[in-house]
Amino acid sequence: MHVLIIGAAGMIGRKLAESFASRALAGSEPKKLTLADVFTPSAPAGFSGDVVTVQTDLAASGAADQLLAERPDVIFHLAAIVSGEAEARFEFGYHVNLDGTRALFEAIRKVHEAEGWTPRVIYSSAIGVFGGGLPDVISDEYIVTPEGSYGTQKAMCELLLSDYSRRGFFDGIGVRLPTICVRPGKPNKAASSFFSGIIREPLVGQEAILPVAETERHWMTSPRSAVQSLRHAMSIDTTLLGSRRNLNMPGLSVTVGEQIEALRHIAGDKAVALIRREPDPIVTRFVQSWPKAFDTKRANELGFTAECRFEDIIRAHIEDELTPKAT
Amino acid sequence: MHVLIIGAAGMIGRKLAESFASRALAGSEPKKLTLADVFTPSAPAGFSGDVVTVQTDLAASGAADQLLAERPDVIFHLAAIVSGEAEARFEFGYHVNLDGTRALFEAIRKVHEAEGWTPRVIYSSAIGVFGGGLPDVISDEYIVTPEGSYGTQKAMCELLLSDYSRRGFFDGIGVRLPTICVRPGKPNKAASSFFSGIIREPLVGQEAILPVAETERHWMTSPRSAVQSLRHAMSIDTTLLGSRRNLNMPGLSVTVGEQIEALRHIAGDKAVALIRREPDPIVTRFVQSWPKAFDTKRANELGFTAECRFEDIIRAHIEDELTPKAT
Repeated sequence: MHVLIIGAAGMIGRKLAESFASRALAGSEPKKLTLADVFTPSAPAGFSGDVVTVQTDLAASGAADQLLAERPDVIFHLAAIVSGEAEARFEFGYHVNLDGTRALFEAIRKVHEAEGWTPRVIYSSAIGVFGGGLPDVISDEYIVTPEGSYGTQKAMCELLLSDYSRRGFFDGIGVRLPTICVRPGKPNKAASSFFSGIIREPLVGQEAILPVAETERHWMTSPRSAVQSLRHAMSIDTTLLGSRRNLNMPGLSVTVGEQIEALRHIAGDKAVALIRREPDPIVTRFVQSWPKAFDTKRANELGFTAECRFEDIIRAHIEDELTPKAT
Repeated sequence: MHVLIIGAAGMIGRKLAESFASRALAGSEPKKLTLADVFTPSAPAGFSGDVVTVQTDLAASGAADQLLAERPDVIFHLAAIVSGEAEARFEFGYHVNLDGTRALFEAIRKVHEAEGWTPRVIYSSAIGVFGGGLPDVISDEYIVTPEGSYGTQKAMCELLLSDYSRRGFFDGIGVRLPTICVRPGKPNKAASSFFSGIIREPLVGQEAILPVAETERHWMTSPRSAVQSLRHAMSIDTTLLGSRRNLNMPGLSVTVGEQIEALRHIAGDKAVALIRREPDPIVTRFVQSWPKAFDTKRANELGFTAECRFEDIIRAHIEDELTPKAT
C-alpha cells in the first residue's frame, strides 16, 4: 500500500507518518510513504518501506498532479493554514484551504476519469465548521454555520468531498477533529493554546497562564487519538456513510477545572501551583463561542474512539512526549 | 438607486426586471437597471429609467469588474445552470455556479477594500441544497446535505455569501426559492417540469403528462411570489439575520391531487380531463427525494410571503401570462 500525506510537516501529519513506522503495526505497514508539505517534511525514524518527501504548494499549477504520479492508494489531506491566519489573511486562506483542496480533488478526478483509479481520500476538517449560538451538545444533525473564514473554507471543502465521493471520483471521508490537547511544543498565538499550555508547561516545571474561568468547557482529544481516528478512516466501510461523508470525531468534553484536577491527580499540587490566572475577556469570549461537547453517534457506530478521561490524555502526552523512546 | 441583475435573461430575472417597470412602484423605481446574462437580456417595457444590457460570462476574467464599474447599490445574482445540466456537465457546473459566483464576490470585495463601497447582494439559492432522507417538514435548523452537484455548488456559494457578509465586504442575503410553479413557456427536460405542465397546458386546451401519483407532495411558489421575495430582500434589516445569511423562502406545500382539484375549481372538469397519467418510476423517485414542505419561521418573521392556496398560484399565472396587459 502507498500512502500519501499532504501536510506531513504539521504536528498531526508528522505523528501520522510516525505511526506508520511503529512496530506495533508489523506486517500491515504501507510499502511506501509520500510526505508532502510547503516545508520539506522529515522522514519518520524506523519506517522500513520507501519514503519520499516533497516540498510543494498544493494550490500551485501542476503540484497536485505531481503528488498523484504514483497513484497512492490512500491520500491524507491535512494541509491547511489555521483559523487565526485564515482570518488575518483572507486571500491566502482561500488560496491554501479552498483552492489547494480543490486542486487536489480535481487532479484526482482527472486521473480517475482517465484510468478508473479511485483512491481513498481522508480529509481533516475541524469543529470550526460550527458556530453561532451553539447548543451545549452538538449532534450529528446540527447545522453547519461557520463564524470564521477558516470554518467556511473547511465546510466548503466538506461539500466538495461529498460531491466528488458521490460521483465516484474518489472514496472520501471528512474527519472533524476536536481541539488537540496536549499539543507538544511551544505555546502559539492561537486563542486555544492555553488548553495545552496549562498541562504541558507545569509537567516540565514551567509556569502557564490560564486566561479563562475554570468553569469553561471545551471539546478535546489527544494527538494520539487524532492520529488513531485518521488511521481508522483508512479501513471503515464507506458505504455506511451514505452521502454524508463528513463525521464529527469523538473527543472528551471537559472543563478547565477538570483539566486542572486531572493534572493534580497525576503531577500533584506543585504542578498545579504553576498555573497562573490572568483572565482575558477576549480569549474568554472566543472560548465561550466554541463547541463544548458533541454527541458523536455516527462516528462511534463506525468504530472511532477517543479518551474518556482527561487523565488518559495527560498520560498519553507523558508517554508520547516526555518518555525516552526505546527504538 | 442602481440595480444590477445578473442572470437577467432567465425567467425569474426577466420578471424581476419587469417588476421594476411596474406602475405600482411609481416613485420608488430604481434610476438605473443593468441587466446581464450570457445571452443579451431584453430591456423591460415601460421602465422609465436608464437600462443597460450586457452579454457576459461572469466567470470570465474581468467580467465581474466590468459589471461593477458603476457601483450598483443592489446586485441580484440569479445566474446559474440548472441541476440537470450541472449533473451532466460536471466541470461546466462548477465553472458557472461556483467560479462565476466567487468571481463576482471577489470583484466586489476588491472594490469594497479600495473604496468602502458595500452593495447589497441578493443571491438566489435553491431547495436543492437539501437532500438525503428528508423529513416531511424541513425547519430552518435542518442540515444542508445536498445530493447533487447543483445543490453542492449552491451550498458552497451560500457559505461564501455568509463569510463575505460577516467580513463586511458586502451585505448579502441568500434566498432559497421553492420550485417555481406555474413556470410559463414550454415544458423542459427538468424532472420537475410536470408540476407546471399539468396546470399550464390544460389552461390553454392542451394535453399534459402526469408521471407521478396524485399523493406526491412538493414545495412550490409562483413566479410572482419568487420575484416578490427577491424584491423584499432588497429592504430587510440584515442585522436581524446574524451570521446566518441564507433563508428558506415561504412557499406552498401541495400534493399533485390538490393541484388538480384547484385546477378543476378554476377551469373545470374539461381542463382536468386533459391530464394524462403516464407513471414514470424515475421521475417518481426524484420527486420522492425532494423537499415536501418547510417551516419557514425565520423568513416569515422577516416579512417574506407566498401564496397560501394553490388556486391563488393558478390565478397569478392566469393574470400574469394569459391576460392581455393594459400598458
